Amino acid sequence: MVGGGPGAFIGGVHRMAARLDDRWELVAGAFSRDPDRARAAAANLHISPGRAYPDFRAMARAEAARADGIDAVSVVTPNASHHAVARAFLDAGINVICEKPMATALPDALDLVRAAREGGRAFVLAHNYTGYPMVRQARAMVAAGELGAIRVVQAEYPQDWLATRLEDTGNRQAAWRVDPAQAGPAGSLGDLGTHAHHLTEFVTGLRLEAVCADLQAFVPGRALDDNAHVLLRFRGGARGALWSSQVSPGNENALRLRVYGEKAGLEWSQEHPNQLRFSPLGEAPRTLARGGAGGLHPAAAAATRLPAGHPEGYLEAFAQLYRDAAEIVAARMEGREPDPLASQVPTAEDGARGVRFLEATLESSRRGVWINAALDP
Amino acid sequence: MVGGGPGAFIGGVHRMAARLDDRWELVAGAFSRDPDRARAAAANLHISPGRAYPDFRAMARAEAARADGIDAVSVVTPNASHHAVARAFLDAGINVICEKPMATALPDALDLVRAAREGGRAFVLAHNYTGYPMVRQARAMVAAGELGAIRVVQAEYPQDWLATRLEDTGNRQAAWRVDPAQAGPAGSLGDLGTHAHHLTEFVTGLRLEAVCADLQAFVPGRALDDNAHVLLRFRGGARGALWSSQVSPGNENALRLRVYGEKAGLEWSQEHPNQLRFSPLGEAPRTLARGGAGGLHPAAAAATRLPAGHPEGYLEAFAQLYRDAAEIVAARMEGREPDPLASQVPTAEDGARGVRFLEATLESSRRGVWINAALDP
Amino acid sequence: MVGGGPGAFIGGVHRMAARLDDRWELVAGAFSRDPDRARAAAANLHISPGRAYPDFRAMARAEAARADGIDAVSVVTPNASHHAVARAFLDAGINVICEKPMATALPDALDLVRAAREGGRAFVLAHNYTGYPMVRQARAMVAAGELGAIRVVQAEYPQDWLATRLEDTGNRQAAWRVDPAQAGPAGSLGDLGTHAHHLTEFVTGLRLEAVCADLQAFVPGRALDDNAHVLLRFRGGARGALWSSQVSPGNENALRLRVYGEKAGLEWSQEHPNQLRFSPLGEAPRTLARGGAGGLHPAAAAATRLPAGHPEGYLEAFAQLYRDAAEIVAARMEGREPDPLASQVPTAEDGARGVRFLEATLESSRRGVWINAALDP
Amino acid sequence: MVGGGPGAFIGGVHRMAARLDDRWELVAGAFSRDPDRARAAAANLHISPGRAYPDFRAMARAEAARADGIDAVSVVTPNASHHAVARAFLDAGINVICEKPMATALPDALDLVRAAREGGRAFVLAHNYTGYPMVRQARAMVAAGELGAIRVVQAEYPQDWLATRLEDTGNRQAAWRVDPAQAGPAGSLGDLGTHAHHLTEFVTGLRLEAVCADLQAFVPGRALDDNAHVLLRFRGGARGALWSSQVSPGNENALRLRVYGEKAGLEWSQEHPNQLRFSPLGEAPRTLARGGAGGLHPAAAAATRLPAGHPEGYLEAFAQLYRDAAEIVAARMEGREPDPLASQVPTAEDGARGVRFLEATLESSRRGVWINAALDP
Repeated sequence: MVGGGPGAFIGGVHRMAARLDDRWELVAGAFSRDPDRARAAAANLHISPGRAYPDFRAMARAEAARADGIDAVSVVTPNASHHAVARAFLDAGINVICEKPMATALPDALDLVRAAREGGRAFVLAHNYTGYPMVRQARAMVAAGELGAIRVVQAEYPQDWLATRLEDTGNRQAAWRVDPAQAGPAGSLGDLGTHAHHLTEFVTGLRLEAVCADLQAFVPGRALDDNAHVLLRFRGGARGALWSSQVSPGNENALRLRVYGEKAGLEWSQEHPNQLRFSPLGEAPRTLARGGAGGLHPAAAAATRLPAGHPEGYLEAFAQLYRDAAEIVAARMEGREPDPLASQVPTAEDGARGVRFLEATLESSRRGVWINAALDP
Repeated sequence: MVGGGPGAFIGGVHRMAARLDDRWELVAGAFSRDPDRARAAAANLHISPGRAYPDFRAMARAEAARADGIDAVSVVTPNASHHAVARAFLDAGINVICEKPMATALPDALDLVRAAREGGRAFVLAHNYTGYPMVRQARAMVAAGELGAIRVVQAEYPQDWLATRLEDTGNRQAAWRVDPAQAGPAGSLGDLGTHAHHLTEFVTGLRLEAVCADLQAFVPGRALDDNAHVLLRFRGGARGALWSSQVSPGNENALRLRVYGEKAGLEWSQEHPNQLRFSPLGEAPRTLARGGAGGLHPAAAAATRLPAGHPEGYLEAFAQLYRDAAEIVAARMEGREPDPLASQVPTAEDGARGVRFLEATLESSRRGVWINAALDP
Repeated sequence: MVGGGPGAFIGGVHRMAARLDDRWELVAGAFSRDPDRARAAAANLHISPGRAYPDFRAMARAEAARADGIDAVSVVTPNASHHAVARAFLDAGINVICEKPMATALPDALDLVRAAREGGRAFVLAHNYTGYPMVRQARAMVAAGELGAIRVVQAEYPQDWLATRLEDTGNRQAAWRVDPAQAGPAGSLGDLGTHAHHLTEFVTGLRLEAVCADLQAFVPGRALDDNAHVLLRFRGGARGALWSSQVSPGNENALRLRVYGEKAGLEWSQEHPNQLRFSPLGEAPRTLARGGAGGLHPAAAAATRLPAGHPEGYLEAFAQLYRDAAEIVAARMEGREPDPLASQVPTAEDGARGVRFLEATLESSRRGVWINAALDP
Repeated sequence: MVGGGPGAFIGGVHRMAARLDDRWELVAGAFSRDPDRARAAAANLHISPGRAYPDFRAMARAEAARADGIDAVSVVTPNASHHAVARAFLDAGINVICEKPMATALPDALDLVRAAREGGRAFVLAHNYTGYPMVRQARAMVAAGELGAIRVVQAEYPQDWLATRLEDTGNRQAAWRVDPAQAGPAGSLGDLGTHAHHLTEFVTGLRLEAVCADLQAFVPGRALDDNAHVLLRFRGGARGALWSSQVSPGNENALRLRVYGEKAGLEWSQEHPNQLRFSPLGEAPRTLARGGAGGLHPAAAAATRLPAGHPEGYLEAFAQLYRDAAEIVAARMEGREPDPLASQVPTAEDGARGVRFLEATLESSRRGVWINAALDP
């Protein structure tokens, strides 16, 4: 693991997620740029001192050289360093599990796509919401044609925790997110909007074509957007809207996706993730449940641990990425194809499309016009 | 009443709404352009034959001439004739309760504004959703500063009943709504979006400044939009998004408004109208209920008939417009100011802003740019 | 109308309900035992002075004698006088719409059953919750075998408004409900439990066989129960539980019914009455909606006024009883059978079973044993 | 671990729960009475062959003798063997984490209470639902007097998976639950009702005094109840009702608790465990959320891993018991008092009260009368 030292949030989540299904063991790390903090974190995590590294480059070199070197690295640093860290490990021949966004500029993202492809290494992007069983169910239903051709996609991810200048209070999570040097050029859009964007593509299988956006920084003094409205056009004619916000009181992590096709609609909410509302046109809406009556697609069934009615949450969804990553890495090491159900995890290509979405949206908001957002126009 | 003959929908709603609070009696009508249908409707409604008119102009003239002529007319014809009918009655000195949109072109709307103002007659626009007690509560809370300055407004009104070519099946309600000659230049936007637009202004007290829109006709062969996405900019800096749709399976009349201010957020859904979610920043969200514990603003309390827990619905909200209209008309006849709580009903000016919103949105979608939507730019 | 003068609640509800569908006109009344209040109420309601009666017996006599006498009387007095008033009108040959419970003792209830039957007059009991379309849908689904044999019935009706000694504050609604002289021997059980009990029988078609109960008066100084738990055994083997409460904070009129059969389950909540959750065993639960996709039984469709998505509420459900009563009275006057769909309204026999339920439950709670609750043991 | 071999359900849950917070390592086991299955399970779980035991007595003896013997054993066998297994480990001086119910007869339960107390060993009963943060919040709120004196407690735990003879289809989970030899004398009551009963006492701090019950076996041929209704009387005067069912279609694990006091009410549902509805009398109900705005009691905050809006589920609640057990065991080994927040885990005494509840309820249903259910009458 690179990053995830004391005071970090997402690093601890990655560790719990990796542990849950007993497919990974944490054995090495560069947990902080501050040597003392790095050492303390390593000790706390029972990492042997020899594998607690002062910096990520040293770690990549050393682990690549060991016979029992790590199978993969988790990159959980702030956004601005994702590219450099991931690139170092890919160069060292080590598989990468990387926090999103994979980079803060498109060339860097494409560079990682190329490096992963040419080096033959796995690159798993931590769009963790795709690990929820009912999100995979939604994807499988669309793929199976149960909604017909998709017409409308509504995605939103509002929060409220940055409705005031929390960044002035010593909150480290807030501070890096509103700082362009650490977060990159997008605020709510980068932190939340990229999740929502990826979810639209993950579930519908559609590819974004163009965006028209209006970004705001409502909280005085803020350099990055804390609210973003985006109109979406997908290839093939589907339309949609995306909203990310950090300033909407009453919303915690209210990620929500609604997909409407010619034959049916789907609605899913991250805060109640075990249900999926399915509305075939002309029939009464039904509430599909994780593990529940009526049966789910294999992709959903494979992503769950518990029978119906015992809720799974965020950690389980996150753990699914690690479980899938274990299968992918094992398959590479064993020279076989991975289980197709494990191959749904977000890839470097997905990450590059996400960076393209960010750049197009920022430009659209600046110029007040539609901007092409396809990766390969 | 003009319109509302056999096969019509909204006319019957107006009649039930007018009856509920026992402030109006239906005594005259021009129910159909077809004389036989008009006569049949009148008989069915216990209208004396002498006051069952063959056309609206005759009715306006005759009723204006009677000592016991009508106090007000309800205009419930398809959109395209609203202006002509309403104008005829205003010219005859008769108060008007008019279905929305008040006109299909801005000059006509402004003409009605002028006619009502100059003639000193009441013009009540049937944006019936504003009659819901919890909508009035929301408006009163914003006005009282309980949300602080408004930042974000999310309005949506999706339906699914026109997801297929229902207009080809003999359904009259569908047929006129997709026909530009009867519905005017907007489809879902005119039928649903105008309600959503009015609700944003009614609740927030803000005025729309500019729109950027993307309208689609998804169902093949349709001339008018059946789905509309609109980005909103309000004067003073608030931003928002509006979505109307007739093609989103699983949505019946899913009008929903969410308003976020510096201090709190509000969420309301028309399909469960007796509740209002209020989320003060940093506090647990609370569920305000019509008539319920904790108390409501007088504007909400005045718009309800039943104690808490016994749901009121669409007809009661609609009836509120008629109850308010009765007070306004009585006040004019008695030469006094009406009760301020009754004065919240949508006016001709509101209607004109709604037509301006329609025209700006249509233009924005055609040109792919932001369009000024203020009535007095 | 008898009762329903100034300060009363349910009388006004009856009047709105009667008016909504334009099948009844209020033309006579004995609105209060206080002559001044009675006169004032009559004037307020536009009743001609000659038909504003000082007491119900005078009214029954006079109206029976008129050629244009009333078609039916609404009895909306406190519980203790229901029997005497209803009996007077039945004796005068006048149809009766009566508030529940129809009597406070079983012999009186059976007396009304007999009087209605022998006099050939309609007796409609105002168990108004049975007028909700989705309650009628539930009944039709059970009758059609869609649930299979019923096993479990859970009924509850909690409120919170009497959690403190509201009766000491001058609240008239509270005062009569806690006074045995006016309310009869049951408190929450009579006011709420009888509704819940009737609903179980209305929807399932089952007949109660025995009860085992535990009643409490939690608020100090109260003579009647303000909370009641009842175990239910139905003929044929179904079991259930019923809970009524006036002291459960956070509940307004939270009447809720859940019915589970061999093949499916149904859940309905009065505070969101336009939906019905239907769960066929082994399939995903579906949300049936009033007027909604997938279609309802004719009994439900006949009890609604609006298309899907525009909520109907308590007044509409109440109005349904009046609409049905109008059909029943008209059929009697025309010497024909009423529309079977209108014949679902609660009858005198239903009311007598309700009184039997009350008496058995009170006895069970006193003695701590199961008590037979069948009307004809 | 004892039990939890191939085909078992709850054993795997215990393992994930133990792993999540990195406080336990699985190093020994007697996973099945079938030696082959036991060996296979051990290998699969990376247990060294020398610590994969053929039976629990051998395991207790051997582990007690090792210097690096286990710190605690998890007992996850069917109900009938809980007592024997737990007793063996307590006798060997080993701490016990035991599935519920702790025994199938009261003397056995009391025997474990005594053995744990006299041996000075920890006994943690896996009433896992008490690990949910919002359940701990509810308990803390009641303890802090935020509800006032408790009046009414409604507990229910319906399921539907045994609505047909699933036990005939080879389903092992179903088979042991309906078999008195393995499950003990109670069916739904033992499997579900004991959870609901414990939750009432855990949250309210009240002690059960008497029960009056009606148990049924609806599915033909079943020896144990698959539905149970129980009236509850608590010491001090609170009343309640409890319902457990395995035959109610549309319910997965619909455990739900509602508690009403003089000052406020609380409602919690296991299927949406991150929220708690809190209704102070006379105020609007509020939705408290795990980690959410407004703050929670320390007991709740200590039982969660994630910030607000990212749902935690059943595994996290279960893991909380293991986290607390780790603290308790560590404190004993270190000769100090455990963190009081960790001391909320259900104990042997709680388990004995649960067995008393079972026996009293079974007797009440047989005899049709109220039965004293206090442990120390």
